[in-house]
Amino acid sequence: MSTDTQISSAPQSGMRDFLPREVRLRDWAAHVITEVYEQFGFTKIETPCLENIALLKRGDGGENLQLIFEILKRGDKLERVLKSSSSESGDETIKKLKAELADMGLRFDLTVPLVRFYSHNQQNLPNPFKSIQIGSVWRAESAQQGRYRQFTQCDIDIFGVKSELAEVELLQATSEALLKLGFENFTICLNDRRLLSSLAGYCGFAEDRFESVFIALDKLDKIGLDGVSRELAGQGHSESSIANLKNLLVELSEVSGPSEKQLEVLAGKTAADTNTVEALMRVISIVKEASGGKFNVQFEPSLVRGMGYYTGPIFEIKYPGYNYSIAGGGRYDRMVGKMSGRDVPACGFSIGFERIIGILMDENFEPQGVREKLALIFDENRDNLADVMKAAANLRSQGYNVLVQSKKKDMKKQIDQLPAQAVSKLCLFKGDLNNLEIKSI
Amino acid sequence: MSTDTQISSAPQSGMRDFLPREVRLRDWAAHVITEVYEQFGFTKIETPCLENIALLKRGDGGENLQLIFEILKRGDKLERVLKSSSSESGDETIKKLKAELADMGLRFDLTVPLVRFYSHNQQNLPNPFKSIQIGSVWRAESAQQGRYRQFTQCDIDIFGVKSELAEVELLQATSEALLKLGFENFTICLNDRRLLSSLAGYCGFAEDRFESVFIALDKLDKIGLDGVSRELAGQGHSESSIANLKNLLVELSEVSGPSEKQLEVLAGKTAADTNTVEALMRVISIVKEASGGKFNVQFEPSLVRGMGYYTGPIFEIKYPGYNYSIAGGGRYDRMVGKMSGRDVPACGFSIGFERIIGILMDENFEPQGVREKLALIFDENRDNLADVMKAAANLRSQGYNVLVQSKKKDMKKQIDQLPAQAVSKLCLFKGDLNNLEIKSI
Repeated sequence: MSTDTQISSAPQSGMRDFLPREVRLRDWAAHVITEVYEQFGFTKIETPCLENIALLKRGDGGENLQLIFEILKRGDKLERVLKSSSSESGDETIKKLKAELADMGLRFDLTVPLVRFYSHNQQNLPNPFKSIQIGSVWRAESAQQGRYRQFTQCDIDIFGVKSELAEVELLQATSEALLKLGFENFTICLNDRRLLSSLAGYCGFAEDRFESVFIALDKLDKIGLDGVSRELAGQGHSESSIANLKNLLVELSEVSGPSEKQLEVLAGKTAADTNTVEALMRVISIVKEASGGKFNVQFEPSLVRGMGYYTGPIFEIKYPGYNYSIAGGGRYDRMVGKMSGRDVPACGFSIGFERIIGILMDENFEPQGVREKLALIFDENRDNLADVMKAAANLRSQGYNVLVQSKKKDMKKQIDQLPAQAVSKLCLFKGDLNNLEIKSI
Repeated sequence: MSTDTQISSAPQSGMRDFLPREVRLRDWAAHVITEVYEQFGFTKIETPCLENIALLKRGDGGENLQLIFEILKRGDKLERVLKSSSSESGDETIKKLKAELADMGLRFDLTVPLVRFYSHNQQNLPNPFKSIQIGSVWRAESAQQGRYRQFTQCDIDIFGVKSELAEVELLQATSEALLKLGFENFTICLNDRRLLSSLAGYCGFAEDRFESVFIALDKLDKIGLDGVSRELAGQGHSESSIANLKNLLVELSEVSGPSEKQLEVLAGKTAADTNTVEALMRVISIVKEASGGKFNVQFEPSLVRGMGYYTGPIFEIKYPGYNYSIAGGGRYDRMVGKMSGRDVPACGFSIGFERIIGILMDENFEPQGVREKLALIFDENRDNLADVMKAAANLRSQGYNVLVQSKKKDMKKQIDQLPAQAVSKLCLFKGDLNNLEIKSI
């Protein structure tokens, strides 16, 4: 026998094999989420995992652009690239060559492909269009950080709705899905990109440097108000603006009562757009009322969300005991226009699928299957296989998932190993189809 | 607004966007298949889409090895490869460079990853191990042939069962899944690699050239017996062997009665191994009895199956009106040993998922969802959004999937477009939560 022991049988760095128990949990969670989203009128679509490398690198992906797995060109196309470069040499050639070696890349999120999908298929899609996407994405994260290089994203998006109906539906559908997955007492935090701009303007930051203010502010949770101030100072923002920001955030944090009071104070001070403020108020109020007290909804003036493409309300969900958000999203009204030349209102919400699964695994959560699993054990040397298969069919028709096994020498050990396979019932075949005795194990 | 009209919004060549209707059908089919397989005691696993390029290229993939999408190395690793080559030039350098540019590849089937998975995780898996895999695979087929470059495979495999229990379960589970998908009157064709060897030996072909005999025989359906003879002659096989083969196949085709009679005749003539023949007889007889006449089971002496890794029984399923098989598989007892150094009996069956979906689409098949879809239409200028959302929640609790829409200027057109979104019921919101009138559309 020829063996290839030099090739490891482990999955590639940052990639995972999923054993039955975890797949069962992942499939169950995806199924529950899909079902809830369908109840809210969303429909599932799918795009290819590979996209044009030029599309992926175009610029809405932030730091993800550095993490694209690129697909090597093939055949003549590759041959030409390599030949044209082989006569020259030097760093410039290598740089040029690198840029020409790949024609496609693995998607790093589901939003870039969704915008392409919508631009391409718009005439065959309803308006408004409400999509569900659950699929793998890939990022070439450095292995040391222990991050996954292939992971599942789970997004809903609404195209074509200008009003806060979109935000309300995304928030209600996502919180309902989380409740159905067994999560409670989570907190939906909301803000609006335009309020962040009003706030930065009120504090006196230069308008062309708002984005760097938001990036610093985004770290408030981790580095505190002093940390944010230091970072802003280090970037050369004016001392007075930094002091204004600090004072305003302290003042807001001291407002008592529900968080909407903070929104009122902020709106009063910063002369934020009235429609923006009122719409956000309505969203908070409607979602809060629908929560039935099972989860919290609050205005969070320092919530930023990393991606620069957001244009309006932004939101994320926090879960007690975990210092990362378990869902996040917002409105991005100008992204379709960048692809198709015509702006379309758009708003999306993404559940952190891997985080949800991680928490459920931490909690040793076991989804209840509809059917019980039963082992049918027979004697290979005695029993007629045709009869055994008839017995198995009979047991399936009684509602069991049936695992047929031939009797091993050590039957006690064999039976002891069944619960690990989620088997809860046992039938020892005695050659008699009319006498299938079922025991619990 | 900056636009990028130079980047097409179409999916990449050979890749597909799936719209809601097709995703619904695909998800339904995958769900039905999974459910049936679970009833037969199989459990679902998942492997990463990317594998070590060396593993993929190792040699069990036949012509698929030419069709691997390769992942470009990244960072320093890529830099080193390019630098080391840039000082040299010529065809040899290009060949060497090509072989070193990639470190991973997209899987081209689910069998190579499964064998790696089993080798790596064996100590955490039950014995026997029965897996379900439903996942995407990628092949860089040339675009002209209209083949998909990303498509779904749907496999079940059993590791650790030497007896024909494995074949019987694979065949029963797969035929049951096809029945549940609405397929009837299909035909399961069976043969055994060892019978093919006996047949080729009986005819007098040289043992070290059996594989080329099988490759020619595999084309019998397409090019007929004379075509096969010509191909064998062209490859320099002896005239007497070709004549023997021809005579034997004609003789077998003239055997009347059920196809097992052909197996008896073949066994008698070629001195095939008795255990092999009897096991195949039992498989045919058990599966035929379980079919309840809803599908056919027959011995097919010229069935070959392309892959060289099969070691025992092989099988495929044909569906009337389609000239390709809709499922195929067989026993491959020596593949795990090539990876882990220790042989493990293995047997698998794969449903041609894309073919199944294609046939269901041809037949305009619509899976029945459990929940009906209802459109709730409200007046954005009149109604309170909080009330609208309460009405929607109420309708969801009545069992509907609810699509909330604000009234458009042309409401008749708006309603006319609903059936295309699978909406069958309508509720016009009148501002009164106690009066939600539901109409059929």
